[in-house]
Amino acid sequence: MFNLRNIEWVGPPESGCLRLLDQTRLPTEIVYLSCRQVPEVFDAIRRLSVRGAPAIGVAAAYACVLAVQPAGDRRAALTQAATFLASSRPTAVNLFWALDRMQRVADPSPSALLAEAKAIHDEDQRMCQQIGRHGLELFRTLATRPQQGRRPLGILTHCNAGALATGGIGTATAPMYLAHQEGLQIAVLADETRPLLQGARLTAFELQSAGVDVTLICDNMAAQFMRQGVIDLVITGADRIAANGDAANKIGTYGLAVLARHHGLPFFVAAPSSTFDLAIPDGRCIPIEQRHALEITEGFGKRTAPADVKTANPAFDVTPHELISAIITEKGVIQPVDTATVARVVAHA
Amino acid sequence: MFNLRNIEWVGPPESGCLRLLDQTRLPTEIVYLSCRQVPEVFDAIRRLSVRGAPAIGVAAAYACVLAVQPAGDRRAALTQAATFLASSRPTAVNLFWALDRMQRVADPSPSALLAEAKAIHDEDQRMCQQIGRHGLELFRTLATRPQQGRRPLGILTHCNAGALATGGIGTATAPMYLAHQEGLQIAVLADETRPLLQGARLTAFELQSAGVDVTLICDNMAAQFMRQGVIDLVITGADRIAANGDAANKIGTYGLAVLARHHGLPFFVAAPSSTFDLAIPDGRCIPIEQRHALEITEGFGKRTAPADVKTANPAFDVTPHELISAIITEKGVIQPVDTATVARVVAHA
Repeated sequence: MFNLRNIEWVGPPESGCLRLLDQTRLPTEIVYLSCRQVPEVFDAIRRLSVRGAPAIGVAAAYACVLAVQPAGDRRAALTQAATFLASSRPTAVNLFWALDRMQRVADPSPSALLAEAKAIHDEDQRMCQQIGRHGLELFRTLATRPQQGRRPLGILTHCNAGALATGGIGTATAPMYLAHQEGLQIAVLADETRPLLQGARLTAFELQSAGVDVTLICDNMAAQFMRQGVIDLVITGADRIAANGDAANKIGTYGLAVLARHHGLPFFVAAPSSTFDLAIPDGRCIPIEQRHALEITEGFGKRTAPADVKTANPAFDVTPHELISAIITEKGVIQPVDTATVARVVAHA
Repeated sequence: MFNLRNIEWVGPPESGCLRLLDQTRLPTEIVYLSCRQVPEVFDAIRRLSVRGAPAIGVAAAYACVLAVQPAGDRRAALTQAATFLASSRPTAVNLFWALDRMQRVADPSPSALLAEAKAIHDEDQRMCQQIGRHGLELFRTLATRPQQGRRPLGILTHCNAGALATGGIGTATAPMYLAHQEGLQIAVLADETRPLLQGARLTAFELQSAGVDVTLICDNMAAQFMRQGVIDLVITGADRIAANGDAANKIGTYGLAVLARHHGLPFFVAAPSSTFDLAIPDGRCIPIEQRHALEITEGFGKRTAPADVKTANPAFDVTPHELISAIITEKGVIQPVDTATVARVVAHA
């Protein structure tokens, strides 16, 4: 298992701080940020030092504790912090879900809020395990088809929906870690995921550290490996899922879903129920964050495009539910992916 | 029009040299290499200082002149140089075509070989114009459909099949340059094309320099822009085309062809007849170059993946002919793309 803590509260509620692994420095440097003020957490989220929908929610929850450490009107401080933190990134709904939950705590004291943040963190960890269990069942079904033979199960993933993106063993990676633990042979292909290379820097890093067989490829190679028959399934995370199952995730996910369909491969999304936004009927209502051109034109610390070239840099795309074979949640597997099944599984207590 | 000479013979046949624009330094630096020996051209091809199937053929042709400049057995020197140059890169067939043609010159003197190399270069330039003419007709047909309205024709291209890849105005880019010249409104999306970013460094650079409306995107964004309806066609070059029309091109091309099919968009390949290898029946016989892991893991002078991570780095993929709407050659348009039509158009004198 991958065992680097990405989010950790250090010290007592009244004077402790939030320790975040700076994911922008991975995989070459292991650097931690100690956040003592809400704006530091805001910046860490905005700069993607902490990223991944579930992890953003957990980090924001702990930031609420920092907000009420100073003496004064703690309820007002909490409300203000929550409003501020909610403006850090627009797409992942777990952020808003965690902040809502923190604001519903009756006693806005550091100790009560820390207890709630830790509960969110712990639940996130259990959620990952449960997603892993459900996902592993799907993997086993595919691995035991007669045509599989003795070849390891070929899994393609995109971006990082891993341990680094959550409080536990990840969402899309959870069944991979459990498969590895239980001896089911898998071979993971990790898309590098331009522009910010979360696949290369984070997914390849955490799977390799855990001893999982992983091969790094460029995003544009996925189709070719599908055609070669070395991929048996595609699995990604999600940043927000609408009531009908349309799923926003890292840019490039939609294309993979189309390619999977063309090659007759199952396309799975793994996400906790906190990623669902049942208030919106379909994916057209999901706001898509547009990020800075420099991520594309000088993403490697060196200019790699002409000066002043026009760019487009949407951070996410939306995969329509028709292209998703199943959504794996901690509450169970949504299959087929439609409004009725989403409602039934997600509403399930 | 883009007006940087990428390949130029400088000086008399007996003592002149081959001047190559070092494309690995673009777009930030304009640096020329003066090659006086065959191994220098070999290295320039291998290192991708000169790249693009037609341009590799032209450069190799000039290198044959360098081979026979020293006194001695010129026929033997030519044969030896051709064998050596043919081993520089395996996929693009124009290289072998140009070397064969140089070896068929009756008089292996510097002046006779330079005349043949210049003929290949000039023909390449005319070929680009003719591809541009045929391609522009296809563009015009699409641009005048009622549903197009007043929106510019949206064109997606991948890698660089541009002026920099040929002796003229490019293959895939040729109809873009002519459209721009003749006032047909176009808006080009250029895939950056990982791992070596030929789209960002070369295509965006040359189109922008020529005043063509171009927007740089990451490879994994193409599907999303197709879905948004801003792409009307996809056009790429090719490195080798089999007798049935299966086309090898930069890795990522096959995926775009699948995505284009899913979105009901035409997928065009633009390539001269010298790119066809009629000796092979289909794409399964095309050798695919595997390149070094470092192109993926530290392509830009900075490590962006874990140490010792496994990678796969095929430089090309093969798009099956069923997914190609038309192949645009200097001799005419191959449509439908099948063995009979390929034979008819390519064999046409």
